Amino acid sequence: MAPRTHRRKKVAASDYQAVLEGIAARVREQPNRGKVATYIPALARIPKTKFAMVVKCVDGREAAVGDADELFSMQSLSKVFTLVMALRQAGAGLWHRVGREPSGNRFNSLVQLEYEQGVPRNPFINAGAHVITDCIVSHDAAGKQSILNEVRRLSGNAAIQFDLEVARSEREHGHLNAAIAHFLKAHGKLRSDVDEVLDAYFHQCSIALSCRDLARAGSFLANGGIDVTTKDRITTARRAKRINALMMTCGLYDAVGSFAFRVGIPAKSGVGGGILGIIPGLLTVAVWSPGLDANGNSDAGVRALELFTTKIGRSVF
Amino acid sequence: MAPRTHRRKKVAASDYQAVLEGIAARVREQPNRGKVATYIPALARIPKTKFAMVVKCVDGREAAVGDADELFSMQSLSKVFTLVMALRQAGAGLWHRVGREPSGNRFNSLVQLEYEQGVPRNPFINAGAHVITDCIVSHDAAGKQSILNEVRRLSGNAAIQFDLEVARSEREHGHLNAAIAHFLKAHGKLRSDVDEVLDAYFHQCSIALSCRDLARAGSFLANGGIDVTTKDRITTARRAKRINALMMTCGLYDAVGSFAFRVGIPAKSGVGGGILGIIPGLLTVAVWSPGLDANGNSDAGVRALELFTTKIGRSVF
Amino acid sequence: MAPRTHRRKKVAASDYQAVLEGIAARVREQPNRGKVATYIPALARIPKTKFAMVVKCVDGREAAVGDADELFSMQSLSKVFTLVMALRQAGAGLWHRVGREPSGNRFNSLVQLEYEQGVPRNPFINAGAHVITDCIVSHDAAGKQSILNEVRRLSGNAAIQFDLEVARSEREHGHLNAAIAHFLKAHGKLRSDVDEVLDAYFHQCSIALSCRDLARAGSFLANGGIDVTTKDRITTARRAKRINALMMTCGLYDAVGSFAFRVGIPAKSGVGGGILGIIPGLLTVAVWSPGLDANGNSDAGVRALELFTTKIGRSVF
Amino acid sequence: MAPRTHRRKKVAASDYQAVLEGIAARVREQPNRGKVATYIPALARIPKTKFAMVVKCVDGREAAVGDADELFSMQSLSKVFTLVMALRQAGAGLWHRVGREPSGNRFNSLVQLEYEQGVPRNPFINAGAHVITDCIVSHDAAGKQSILNEVRRLSGNAAIQFDLEVARSEREHGHLNAAIAHFLKAHGKLRSDVDEVLDAYFHQCSIALSCRDLARAGSFLANGGIDVTTKDRITTARRAKRINALMMTCGLYDAVGSFAFRVGIPAKSGVGGGILGIIPGLLTVAVWSPGLDANGNSDAGVRALELFTTKIGRSVF
Repeated sequence: MAPRTHRRKKVAASDYQAVLEGIAARVREQPNRGKVATYIPALARIPKTKFAMVVKCVDGREAAVGDADELFSMQSLSKVFTLVMALRQAGAGLWHRVGREPSGNRFNSLVQLEYEQGVPRNPFINAGAHVITDCIVSHDAAGKQSILNEVRRLSGNAAIQFDLEVARSEREHGHLNAAIAHFLKAHGKLRSDVDEVLDAYFHQCSIALSCRDLARAGSFLANGGIDVTTKDRITTARRAKRINALMMTCGLYDAVGSFAFRVGIPAKSGVGGGILGIIPGLLTVAVWSPGLDANGNSDAGVRALELFTTKIGRSVF
Repeated sequence: MAPRTHRRKKVAASDYQAVLEGIAARVREQPNRGKVATYIPALARIPKTKFAMVVKCVDGREAAVGDADELFSMQSLSKVFTLVMALRQAGAGLWHRVGREPSGNRFNSLVQLEYEQGVPRNPFINAGAHVITDCIVSHDAAGKQSILNEVRRLSGNAAIQFDLEVARSEREHGHLNAAIAHFLKAHGKLRSDVDEVLDAYFHQCSIALSCRDLARAGSFLANGGIDVTTKDRITTARRAKRINALMMTCGLYDAVGSFAFRVGIPAKSGVGGGILGIIPGLLTVAVWSPGLDANGNSDAGVRALELFTTKIGRSVF
Repeated sequence: MAPRTHRRKKVAASDYQAVLEGIAARVREQPNRGKVATYIPALARIPKTKFAMVVKCVDGREAAVGDADELFSMQSLSKVFTLVMALRQAGAGLWHRVGREPSGNRFNSLVQLEYEQGVPRNPFINAGAHVITDCIVSHDAAGKQSILNEVRRLSGNAAIQFDLEVARSEREHGHLNAAIAHFLKAHGKLRSDVDEVLDAYFHQCSIALSCRDLARAGSFLANGGIDVTTKDRITTARRAKRINALMMTCGLYDAVGSFAFRVGIPAKSGVGGGILGIIPGLLTVAVWSPGLDANGNSDAGVRALELFTTKIGRSVF
Repeated sequence: MAPRTHRRKKVAASDYQAVLEGIAARVREQPNRGKVATYIPALARIPKTKFAMVVKCVDGREAAVGDADELFSMQSLSKVFTLVMALRQAGAGLWHRVGREPSGNRFNSLVQLEYEQGVPRNPFINAGAHVITDCIVSHDAAGKQSILNEVRRLSGNAAIQFDLEVARSEREHGHLNAAIAHFLKAHGKLRSDVDEVLDAYFHQCSIALSCRDLARAGSFLANGGIDVTTKDRITTARRAKRINALMMTCGLYDAVGSFAFRVGIPAKSGVGGGILGIIPGLLTVAVWSPGLDANGNSDAGVRALELFTTKIGRSVF
């Protein structure tokens, strides 16, 4: 049996550029772009008109439109990268501590966690992310700094920083996350102190990066685990596939089904308005628009990705 | 932008045959094959040693091992085909009556249905399937006979029949389905009589077909909506993709996440022990082994599919 | 230790009459009286202005105001009397089939039933009442006729009948009850056929009696298990107390706490607008006003009972 | 209408003494006394053989058996006294912040709290107690000291203290309470800081008092709001009745129904093994035995109270 090969006709970089420009034009015509997250002031003041979209191909080519180099808050997008780190540290044993099933509930629900005795459904709901972060801070004394370093390495941008105002504000308004973390601790599911886990979690969420950084940082997921730029192996080919599978079934909060239905690619979103999408073997596509839909996903971002997979005629289905 | 093309090297039919034979040998070595469904006698008496696997490529080639022509009960696999029919009759308006999100709960749970006022999460949980069946019997006086005819047409096997003993037995033991249907009716979500919907539903579940029939019947889903054998257009290319997306996020009861993780392709299972998997643009793969795992999916079937995507080096991720 | 004695000063019958007349005057001034149940036409057409209140003392005296001899639909009030019958037939073993705890959920919720594997929380939610009715029809071939006979005997009114229009209408609109009964059957919690249980249940709910009938029928609960008029022992003193305890903790749907808080006596309500209250050792008080509050309890009825316990300075607390 | 009068034959103090001694003898014969709470070391080391029972009549007489002057941890019993304080401070407006209905769920469940947007079902589940404690610490700068002073005043024992080891241990192991408090704060239901509320809560739980102290401290609830010893009015007669009603419907965790059924009086329990029961107009009865049943109520304590109401032939039903 032949190994998987990708011998489709190369699409010229200029073509992706044209696709992105067409999408940006369509998005500009669309007045309604959801609501910016308001739970912390630092997010609430981002203009809804911001929009960026960047494609990073596995052959290294890149296309970009809009505010592609403007910084935004990573938020839940960080969960993809902490998962990769935790799998590197803990191996498949990690799956004893967190499940791999869609939750069917809001990302920050405590109900399911209670019915299931403190084992989070998957690494992308908040409870699961706390377990992942606990895994990292328990294995690695550098903790949150290591998370920042990983994002810097993957994006190739050493200037990426925590946004300390965001981190502080997350903590002040983070009572729901504190509730979840204390609940996990009560069920013996966290090894480190609750405060340490929350501190690392709020810092990873606060990482400020650009849409271009994001597209580059995710490139290994489209490329069998190998960073497109540096050729570093970030994770095994099998794990890269499996993380894509998790993004497909659990990556968009309570809208994974309709996103798969409309867009058809693995993706992960954050309440900062960013979404990272993967077409395995072909490219990563990052989009940023801070207005969110009712499910907490970037409203214009989801539409832009739907236009993208429709225009290029490619999805995983 | 180029349309999607599939110019991978043709894999010889004999190669798939060899892959399937290797898998069958591995399955034979495995003593534990889950538990046969026992809720009705007609299913409980099927020997657990039965095993079949059939590949149907989009170029028409076919490979098969084991009890590939032995009949088994379609059960929930019928939900894929009734969904195609209902979309043909009702169009996208169908999505006002049933959602497209994974449930995060057991396939026959009433809890979620109650919290969400009678709108089933997706067409593949039982409540959703009742809405789909209601749609068909409301549009089409022939009702259950039309469902049978569709399965006959898609499999190219006019000899396929309802198993009337199974249908009768499903009804006798079908109090949970009756509870769900009455609950939907109480919430105004069924147009036809409860008894008529249940009768059609129990009959569609009772359809007896072979693993070969199943692989052929699903071929349009791997082939952009066009039946591989007859070249009939069964559904639009867009709907075929979207049904694949639904299978990916909702097709394996409460194990969609781990199936995507391990196997990585859209699939739908039934408690008769059948699973239909799709590699878009390439092939359908059907497997049958009546022993079920704790989630109600064919135990050996899931393992066989995992071996299959691993050996051929192809998944959607 | 002395046995319980009731040597309080006798309150003259004329005093209760004056209390009731004062309450009726207050109720007449109150324009808002909730909403009449509309789920079946026979209930929806009852004028909201109807009001009756009857006191039956353990010494035999009686006081009444308003439409005290007009018939109304017993509905869930029947659950008190079927419970007495089922305890007589099945003894304390009945408590293996139904719990004794408040549900904390709406009276017809399926959620809790699912989480608790088909054992209803108490005999006064619909699921519990189906188990009780199943117990009766399983023990007694006369089934629903025996229930009618019991209500006739306890009220001393042989003219009491099923309202067959109501019974038919309950069945036609009874899909939620059918869902509950099928769910119980699916979990092996009903011995008789679902249809037989539902038929008896819908008939017991349809029994048409007057407020005076109701006050008399419940007199044994205030009188240590002995019918005040006939001196027949209806149940043991211990069971009478225990049924009062169940009414206190489970008798008013999702408002038991606030009813205990405001009124302070054991009581059971029905969606026909009737409420039966007990002051152990002293009297029963029945009230009827068809307009319901948000919890499904008679709006004016609850207020009338609150005035009553306040004016006579007696509650169980 | 005559005011409520209590002209039952006076029961001699010696009679209650005999009743209690009979019960103590029965309890001593019973080898199985449940399991001592183990979630903190200070509770886990209490011998299960401890037993005390004290009756305090509204006429001032007292009867006691067993370890009636040994100190134990008040735990949830404190919730009765903080409720009285909060009602004094906030009046009926308190009921906008906390409900009065039984929860139908475990005392520390977060599920219901989530479904009901952070309004606790009643003041006796942990979430409700946090709201009550928040009310006290928001109104009263002395906070936890005021709670201690109230318990001292009501029991007439100025030597009562916080058990600081217990308070510290509660905090260390109090992650579930921390989860609940952060959840309430996230929903805007706490006015004070989470840490301040938790600190006061853990201290109130740690108060160490004797069974005799407890019987005396609750005497006002049996006596229309007036302390039996000091004749101080602690609360209005109406509030005393209403607190009794709340104890009846919400005072014994998830066993209120069966306790009402078996024992038939308003009561409140704590995981330290204490139970306070009220027979309005007659007496308070306190019992202590540290072994708990599956619901978290004192195992021997519940049985002792059942024997007590049976032997004296008095309950509220």
